[in-house]
Amino acid sequence: MKQAIGVIDSGVGGLTVAYELMRQLPKEKLIYVGDQARCPYGPRSAEEVKQFTWEMVDFLLEKDIKMLVVACNTATAFTLASLKKHLSIPVIGVIQPGARAAIKFTKNNRIGIIGTEGTIRSNAYTLALKNIKKELEIRAQACPMFVPMVEQGILEGPKAKQVVADALEPLMEHNQMDTLILGCTHYPLLKDTIQSVVGEQVTIISSSEETARETSTILEVHNLLNHDEVFPVHQFYTTGELDMFIQISERIFKEPNLQMITIKKATLPQMQDS
Amino acid sequence: MKQAIGVIDSGVGGLTVAYELMRQLPKEKLIYVGDQARCPYGPRSAEEVKQFTWEMVDFLLEKDIKMLVVACNTATAFTLASLKKHLSIPVIGVIQPGARAAIKFTKNNRIGIIGTEGTIRSNAYTLALKNIKKELEIRAQACPMFVPMVEQGILEGPKAKQVVADALEPLMEHNQMDTLILGCTHYPLLKDTIQSVVGEQVTIISSSEETARETSTILEVHNLLNHDEVFPVHQFYTTGELDMFIQISERIFKEPNLQMITIKKATLPQMQDS
Repeated sequence: MKQAIGVIDSGVGGLTVAYELMRQLPKEKLIYVGDQARCPYGPRSAEEVKQFTWEMVDFLLEKDIKMLVVACNTATAFTLASLKKHLSIPVIGVIQPGARAAIKFTKNNRIGIIGTEGTIRSNAYTLALKNIKKELEIRAQACPMFVPMVEQGILEGPKAKQVVADALEPLMEHNQMDTLILGCTHYPLLKDTIQSVVGEQVTIISSSEETARETSTILEVHNLLNHDEVFPVHQFYTTGELDMFIQISERIFKEPNLQMITIKKATLPQMQDS
Repeated sequence: MKQAIGVIDSGVGGLTVAYELMRQLPKEKLIYVGDQARCPYGPRSAEEVKQFTWEMVDFLLEKDIKMLVVACNTATAFTLASLKKHLSIPVIGVIQPGARAAIKFTKNNRIGIIGTEGTIRSNAYTLALKNIKKELEIRAQACPMFVPMVEQGILEGPKAKQVVADALEPLMEHNQMDTLILGCTHYPLLKDTIQSVVGEQVTIISSSEETARETSTILEVHNLLNHDEVFPVHQFYTTGELDMFIQISERIFKEPNLQMITIKKATLPQMQDS
């Protein structure tokens, strides 16, 4: 049986999904690839995102993966349908799990979504939500400052709070929103700051936590859960600079998790076809 | 394509799962059967529970169902594996979704479980939790007074609070539990009272909410979600007295949901084989 869960991302944001997979599924081995060299995907065309995503998938398919997690909202928005159609292993993206969790949590059917410009422009969350529950009232807001701020390590304090408060102002006018989806895998690192801005009465949905939880569901449905009592050693790859990747990994994965991860540089194969 | 989600329960507890399915999946039609005549299943033998459960399944298989939800913890504990093995449609029980949600929520790996004597005796939650995450510290507690109290409509007030406080006392000594699984589908009706006893720092997991959410996941994975814009009329059956079933339905489903439900008496076929 194939052993690992493959995880792909445009860069480092998907590490929050990897962290949650390790926390919620500690017996499962991960093979992660982040396309840091060509990050961010947010402002790129659908065609480019699709091509780069398939290159990462081809890289992972040559390894020992039993399931694929698309840990990037932009890649999910543009490529999930094509991946599901062509791959013989189960595939999950980050959008549907966040949407389903929001539908579970909301009591007043008023939901907010924040994400990169690409994700918000794709309308993918709104479509996923409305497809299941038409009567939802949804407001979406792009927050282009958040990813650079997270990558610089500015997660809390007055400056972070001011940037978050300014970005969320249009959304906060959406009165009585009781649920807010973090539609970008970088944003869980800002969760405390976002919570302090929106108030305790708003439930914040981390698409990273929810995707890990549904990965667990799907592995069970397909009878793919690992039952062996071995501690997995995870393989992480980046197409970009190792230093920055390691630095952000250290911020997300605390000891002893870091001891379970090997980090290497990856060169992606040219895309064969999509 | 088959149209409805089949839901089975030993009686009325599963109505909380049906309520959540209607709330989270408003386009999906439900066909529910509750074996009120032979309720409760909790104190019965595994053989009996298995036989009665298969009789309900045979009843539903003659109808238009595309998926089966076992909305009873006792039936899930004793029959889920057999149902999954023999049925060609997707099957979900109430135990795994609650377990996965608890693993997602807990930060300190200390989890409490409450349920009927049958469910706690079966050890099914502990096995489901430990199978995924060995390092959890789990304490389980049977609460035999809760189901009769709920069925009498005693959900809050000093008497309900006293019964809940007494029952949870051994569990509360399990210091620093941060997550509590309601391992019985009757218990969500006592959620506010239970929360007031355990305190706000404990996250309460409703297996009903979580099962509805995973039903949504599984329908999507199998490409079985209904995309039609028609308002479903749900069919509910009980093997017992209509009066009590209707009375409890009115407590759980508020208007306008009740208008979408037809309630009838059911006579189950003799079990052919299991």
